Amino acid sequence: MGAVKSKRMPRAVRERQMMDAAVQTFGQRGYRAASMDEIAELAGVSKPLVYLYLHSKEDLFSACIRREAEALVAAVRAGVDPELPADGQLWSGLRAFFTHTAENPDGWAVLHRQARSHGEPFISEVVVMRDEIVAFVTGLIGAAAREAHRDPALVDRDVAGLAQALVGAAESLAGWANDTPGVSAKEAAATLMNFAWAGLENLMHARPWQPPADAS
Amino acid sequence: MGAVKSKRMPRAVRERQMMDAAVQTFGQRGYRAASMDEIAELAGVSKPLVYLYLHSKEDLFSACIRREAEALVAAVRAGVDPELPADGQLWSGLRAFFTHTAENPDGWAVLHRQARSHGEPFISEVVVMRDEIVAFVTGLIGAAAREAHRDPALVDRDVAGLAQALVGAAESLAGWANDTPGVSAKEAAATLMNFAWAGLENLMHARPWQPPADAS
Repeated sequence: MGAVKSKRMPRAVRERQMMDAAVQTFGQRGYRAASMDEIAELAGVSKPLVYLYLHSKEDLFSACIRREAEALVAAVRAGVDPELPADGQLWSGLRAFFTHTAENPDGWAVLHRQARSHGEPFISEVVVMRDEIVAFVTGLIGAAAREAHRDPALVDRDVAGLAQALVGAAESLAGWANDTPGVSAKEAAATLMNFAWAGLENLMHARPWQPPADAS
Repeated sequence: MGAVKSKRMPRAVRERQMMDAAVQTFGQRGYRAASMDEIAELAGVSKPLVYLYLHSKEDLFSACIRREAEALVAAVRAGVDPELPADGQLWSGLRAFFTHTAENPDGWAVLHRQARSHGEPFISEVVVMRDEIVAFVTGLIGAAAREAHRDPALVDRDVAGLAQALVGAAESLAGWANDTPGVSAKEAAATLMNFAWAGLENLMHARPWQPPADAS
């Protein structure tokens, strides 16, 4: 408001700028090709400052994975309204997921492509996040199944398998949506609802798909 | 039949033994931890012979990815009977996929985990295989949709998205089935049919899931 601008920014602001630059660079160019020079330049800070704050390229990459994983999990949790009926919860969670991955394509590339391509310790970081998402989806499907009928025909292992299928499908679709011009987050979410919801709904009402009688 | 056993095996047999040993070692211990000594010992041949036939650890790993990818694609293609109705084709293809990944857990670990964790050129090898599977599934879903109604409400992009969802779900479930004691190939395939089929069938008959009216 007319005050003299300080050249000294709060540490948190600087760190965020560095992390933003790092996610963009790692996501677009990959872990190996990304240089600390490039990241520092994009963040508008000196390279020694990046090392001072974030220590090493490996630490910086790990910090990016953690930040992007937390943001994605938070976006999905915030998107689900627990007051909605089961299909509304699933729809709102998928909308939140695909909106977040569409709006943060570099972050999604870091999590889904880069973090898995460079061995440990990065894979472990992203596995923790994936397990958290699977647990959350398992809870959603389990709650919906209990809501649908009192004598649960869906055993825990079925619910666990369905959650794995849903998460795997969402991961695959998010990559496809980001790589395919013109696919919106809503369209990707609707594709997955169409794919998944009718089957889940049938299962929850104990109407499973039956293999043909002659199949072993 | 009583003849003196030759100590000289045909080259093809030796190579297969080496490749079997390499897939087992890479799949169980990972690319980096696997040693050529270990692979040679497991194959019952000398280390120089492995190098003579397969040149380097990198070439050997690439050869394993190619062999396992070809075997998986061939198993899925062979499993689908084109005379069956659409759900029978999908069911038989999924049975073949999960049977193959259950019977070849080391091969599946090489394709799904190891090949993606060690950068290029390995990722490209496995992406080629995945694209081939997606194209095959796209063909199956497209044919089923055309069979179901003459005026296709399912546009090509929808079919492409559904194929991505199905392949992603199958990949995720195969890893879960191999890591979870007692999950059979049939159970994994039935989980995915339950998840996917009802939705696909509705779509093919132009009965899509509709978002709630108040959702944007």
